[in-house]
Amino acid sequence: MNMASLTPKHFLWRMQGEVAVIQLARPERKNPLTFDSYAELRDTFRDLAYADDVKAVVFAANGGNFSSGGDVHDIIGPLVERDMKGLLAFTRMTGDLVKAMLNCRKPVIAAVDGVCVGAGAIIAMASDIRFATPEAKTAFLFTRVGLAGCDMGACAILPRIIGQGRAADLLYSGRSMSAEEGHAWGFYNRLFEADKLETEAIAYAQRLCEGPTFAHGITKTQLNQEWSMSLEQALEAEAQAQAICMQTKDFERAYRAFVAKQKPEFGGD
Amino acid sequence: MNMASLTPKHFLWRMQGEVAVIQLARPERKNPLTFDSYAELRDTFRDLAYADDVKAVVFAANGGNFSSGGDVHDIIGPLVERDMKGLLAFTRMTGDLVKAMLNCRKPVIAAVDGVCVGAGAIIAMASDIRFATPEAKTAFLFTRVGLAGCDMGACAILPRIIGQGRAADLLYSGRSMSAEEGHAWGFYNRLFEADKLETEAIAYAQRLCEGPTFAHGITKTQLNQEWSMSLEQALEAEAQAQAICMQTKDFERAYRAFVAKQKPEFGGD
Amino acid sequence: MNMASLTPKHFLWRMQGEVAVIQLARPERKNPLTFDSYAELRDTFRDLAYADDVKAVVFAANGGNFSSGGDVHDIIGPLVERDMKGLLAFTRMTGDLVKAMLNCRKPVIAAVDGVCVGAGAIIAMASDIRFATPEAKTAFLFTRVGLAGCDMGACAILPRIIGQGRAADLLYSGRSMSAEEGHAWGFYNRLFEADKLETEAIAYAQRLCEGPTFAHGITKTQLNQEWSMSLEQALEAEAQAQAICMQTKDFERAYRAFVAKQKPEFGGD
Repeated sequence: MNMASLTPKHFLWRMQGEVAVIQLARPERKNPLTFDSYAELRDTFRDLAYADDVKAVVFAANGGNFSSGGDVHDIIGPLVERDMKGLLAFTRMTGDLVKAMLNCRKPVIAAVDGVCVGAGAIIAMASDIRFATPEAKTAFLFTRVGLAGCDMGACAILPRIIGQGRAADLLYSGRSMSAEEGHAWGFYNRLFEADKLETEAIAYAQRLCEGPTFAHGITKTQLNQEWSMSLEQALEAEAQAQAICMQTKDFERAYRAFVAKQKPEFGGD
Repeated sequence: MNMASLTPKHFLWRMQGEVAVIQLARPERKNPLTFDSYAELRDTFRDLAYADDVKAVVFAANGGNFSSGGDVHDIIGPLVERDMKGLLAFTRMTGDLVKAMLNCRKPVIAAVDGVCVGAGAIIAMASDIRFATPEAKTAFLFTRVGLAGCDMGACAILPRIIGQGRAADLLYSGRSMSAEEGHAWGFYNRLFEADKLETEAIAYAQRLCEGPTFAHGITKTQLNQEWSMSLEQALEAEAQAQAICMQTKDFERAYRAFVAKQKPEFGGD
Repeated sequence: MNMASLTPKHFLWRMQGEVAVIQLARPERKNPLTFDSYAELRDTFRDLAYADDVKAVVFAANGGNFSSGGDVHDIIGPLVERDMKGLLAFTRMTGDLVKAMLNCRKPVIAAVDGVCVGAGAIIAMASDIRFATPEAKTAFLFTRVGLAGCDMGACAILPRIIGQGRAADLLYSGRSMSAEEGHAWGFYNRLFEADKLETEAIAYAQRLCEGPTFAHGITKTQLNQEWSMSLEQALEAEAQAQAICMQTKDFERAYRAFVAKQKPEFGGD
């Protein structure tokens, strides 16, 4: 399955080599999410699991902001009118976007500038690697709209990234995490000035594309599967997963290149 | 059920608005715990799950110290004489205090000054948010009395807050963690001078009381439940939990206030 | 069972008091691992669970380097020729070394200098406490040989030490973690100059040997068991484990010494 020529309706999509670059499309409103963009993103990340021509994804800011999250008028207004069945349909759809990102088998690099709040902060959190500018303001502000912090996996995933105490502070208070805090706490892997951010994120993604991309997909699967295993189970799971990777051509390519004192050229198979 | 007028025998209790402030009551001995105070704290936190008039808890220092933990004469002496059934009754009782803190459905903010060791360090660890003074000395010193680090959940909870390597160092060596280390590692959320500590902790708790307190209870439940779920399970659990919160009046209040460009007034329902 | 006089064939072994000091034995090649040294290390750590005369282990650098990991010629070459059954036998053997380290019931302190990569980085990761020099270069470089990051438990254990985001960066990119990063992130507990490193690691281990060593074994077991338990399960598990420790003579020794205002002399029973 090929996806390079995708033409999504509710967000921007372009290819840089084998890297798909996604941006939300309403910079004049700081890139809110809508029912339509949630659903189309979910379907796109689901499809990415089968895409042969996309090897990594960069989820980038647009117009100086990453995302303002679920739009108050377009999303919260209609939700207030819904019954439980309708509400659960919504929370499952947003959770399914996170599941699709976790299960897409490609590394996702978030490039965060400016506003990154609510579901926007979740998209950054559900990415594998996160870069940001010093101006990034990241807030899990669900409490401010009367909700709990447990939105789209935040109570499970955020503590695994920054620790339980810091996650509790952000989720109870809804306060903004500065870029400096995010970097010190391990939420952001690196900080870059705004004019370098996207370039650096794409460069990182392209370096991964030059690596053993099948194996990267296994790395992603195991990083997300093993939190709820015992260490004994995880060790057996890794023995099996790595044995699979040892039967790829990329493993042999790396060995042959090493013996020949050359740089390996990986093929993702 | 109302608890504002509680008159506990073995610790201090007062209300600041909807915030219950708990202090251990023997500052001249750095606030040790006794069989009686363990049991009464356990019962009080159990009752808090049903209290309508308490929305948050601050567990504060007293007389410049947080707690010296289980008293050597009052607790360790008698334990040395007990048989296995009696010992297990004790370790289950202390573990039940932690379970009661985790399950009380209200945010607990620890305000730590001076000595914070043994079961005292556990009470800080089992709180949701931790503030401290630069003079706070925190030690999981069970090893110094011939015991293992696995006391009252320390081997499970401490690594989730500060990471496995740092937790191992503290639990094997029993050494003191400085306030500066605690802050850098995410154990302490913020540091304050001693004369500001309690005021700041109560102010933080009161801000939470002004928020959607029912939703805060759900945040607490999910933060503590989801560590042992798979990410798939956690995402479904959060979809359900957040859908519940979307049927509260607080969610609608937040929406109406936003549309009216006002600050929402939450009711905890 | 006694192990002080062990004479391993494929690594160095010496005793400093009750501390076993292990070093890989080929400093001229930066201490690679081979099929033989993997297997002998696995068997040795398995035996350590039953050793009465060894109370702690220091895994030390040799000749300025910790370990260069699995040797390309001795290990990767032969693996490229193996079928799935043979590959799985290898990945299970290496995973069994980690299992044996986790289950050996003695604290393991890694003293890391210079090169610490691949399976060498895993040995450091699977230790309980990690010291390093400012020159330590630590890389989980499996991706560079065409493999996934899920090698010998890395996708399970590394995130628990340094957080999911930083672990993802190291495992996807294979890049080197500097000693300064490792210290800031909680991978390394302390940094020492090269001429102090081994002495400090042995001193730390010896202090543990002077403590309640039976209880230390329980601490290790619980630290590794409780990640995959619910908090309720962990609290019951700790109530049982600590009650066991309260029936040791070391617990009583500590109490008697405290009453007599003396330093306790522990016996590990």
